[in-house]
Amino acid sequence: METTLPTVESIREAARLIKPYIHRTPLLSSAQLNNLTGGELFFKCENLQKAGAFKSRGAMHAVLRLGKAEHEKGVATHSSGNHAQALARAALITGTKSWIVMPKTAPEVKVNGVKNYEGNIIFCEPTLQAREQTLDEVIDQTGAITIHPYNNLEVITGQATACLELFEQAPPLDVVLCPVGGGGLLSGTLLSRNYFSPNTAVIACEPEGANDAWQSYKAGKLIPSVNPDTIADGLLTSLGSITFPIILNYANDIVTVADDAIIHAMKLVWERMKIVIEPSAAVCLAAILANKLDVTGKRVGIILSGGNVDLNKLPW
Amino acid sequence: METTLPTVESIREAARLIKPYIHRTPLLSSAQLNNLTGGELFFKCENLQKAGAFKSRGAMHAVLRLGKAEHEKGVATHSSGNHAQALARAALITGTKSWIVMPKTAPEVKVNGVKNYEGNIIFCEPTLQAREQTLDEVIDQTGAITIHPYNNLEVITGQATACLELFEQAPPLDVVLCPVGGGGLLSGTLLSRNYFSPNTAVIACEPEGANDAWQSYKAGKLIPSVNPDTIADGLLTSLGSITFPIILNYANDIVTVADDAIIHAMKLVWERMKIVIEPSAAVCLAAILANKLDVTGKRVGIILSGGNVDLNKLPW
Repeated sequence: METTLPTVESIREAARLIKPYIHRTPLLSSAQLNNLTGGELFFKCENLQKAGAFKSRGAMHAVLRLGKAEHEKGVATHSSGNHAQALARAALITGTKSWIVMPKTAPEVKVNGVKNYEGNIIFCEPTLQAREQTLDEVIDQTGAITIHPYNNLEVITGQATACLELFEQAPPLDVVLCPVGGGGLLSGTLLSRNYFSPNTAVIACEPEGANDAWQSYKAGKLIPSVNPDTIADGLLTSLGSITFPIILNYANDIVTVADDAIIHAMKLVWERMKIVIEPSAAVCLAAILANKLDVTGKRVGIILSGGNVDLNKLPW
Repeated sequence: METTLPTVESIREAARLIKPYIHRTPLLSSAQLNNLTGGELFFKCENLQKAGAFKSRGAMHAVLRLGKAEHEKGVATHSSGNHAQALARAALITGTKSWIVMPKTAPEVKVNGVKNYEGNIIFCEPTLQAREQTLDEVIDQTGAITIHPYNNLEVITGQATACLELFEQAPPLDVVLCPVGGGGLLSGTLLSRNYFSPNTAVIACEPEGANDAWQSYKAGKLIPSVNPDTIADGLLTSLGSITFPIILNYANDIVTVADDAIIHAMKLVWERMKIVIEPSAAVCLAAILANKLDVTGKRVGIILSGGNVDLNKLPW
């Protein structure tokens, strides 16, 4: 790999830096889900994180790492999802400006989330091309620094702190399951595993309808998504030039699972664990329940990535 | 009061006894809800308790306190709610039998909950008279010991451990808010406040449509509910002969709030805190948001009593 990867010290330093601004999220377990799966499951509840997702870690870290000159220019990104809120929040906390390019079709709840954190929203057509072009224009006009949602080493280093905490909170784990979309959380998880618990396997879980990570991993080359279609709206994105090599080198496996299993697992977590998770966060448990993974007798860490859902439009 | 109240030592002993069988539930906070209310709110998440409610504490404690002869006879109760599951669970754990009288109209999810814990279910007509009569018949036939859901000192002592933990987890609190139905949780909370944080006020919150505790407290005599009607199905019951005097003597106040405010607060907690709470657990936050209580500048403990809801029948 050409990229210099975050070191063990940079991950520890990231944890120290972001600590005042994020939750040390609880680790929950459920006797009923243990009985159902035959494993001993430890859920790292990033749905209970600030702004409702692990994204607050990476965005906070990236913004705290800006130099003075960069800080004065502000930050920008395009996102219709959790990174948008997380970046606007990090900018507000640190007293810098943020510009968020959002598709004009973005749900009102997500637009309001960014507005709550005083982000400047620029709407565009709902295509990747329009989003990238609009972001380029914003950066031309403002000089803002782009904070990519996942293909950014400072973001990845921030996301790595979720799994660092998981290892601190849980007993020794046989395996950690992590959802994969763009691969920021997965890359951070792999690095934390390498440094802090090298004997733990990390298996990524992905929706069948957006299986570019699985395809890329199996082919050994980056294969972007074409028309991804899944209920797990946080996992529609494709791997990036930084995240793909980390995943290819270090992931123990990637498995895919169908949307109906994702919805079933999501509802089961709400019912049995009494927590709200978004579809993207349910992919790992779905993979277990759909027999894509055998966790019998294993200690399993599962990263619940987020909890931002429209309560008026539930998928059951 | 004629009843000898649980002592400080009996509450500490209850906490030690039930510890292996219950969760030390997390204390969560939300910057957004703090901003919205002007207070500093600390939510004690008994919705994340075993079997989804604080009821697991009292039922577990009552069953662990049975003598050998009583233990051999088994336990019985009538309940369509969280106590039914909690008692069946406690009986299963301790290897005793349980008989649960349930109205034949009880939701399938609650019936299945009891079945999961191997409780023997006896269905009856959905009236209090039929429930009590059926329970009497069960006890005649089996010799089982009745474990009342709230009018029972061992149950109250178990419920007191929720607030004991709250005081251990939170900074010094100005006030604790607690929902009131039959008054078991509230009685335990008042006793724990008396022993462990005597300068903290305890204010009970009750649905307007089931305001027997408020009426009784204001009148200074026990006034049972007549045709209570509220979305907060855990709070339909009336105070009992043991809970009423504790509440009358020690509660700092009781406030009531309408169902629409309860539903609003419930949805807000799901949205902002990413946890599933039942309507009964939302009554305290509802009272704040409906301006029945002023928490400006105060440190406020709120006991989220449970999270058992039918996800297919949400009230919004």
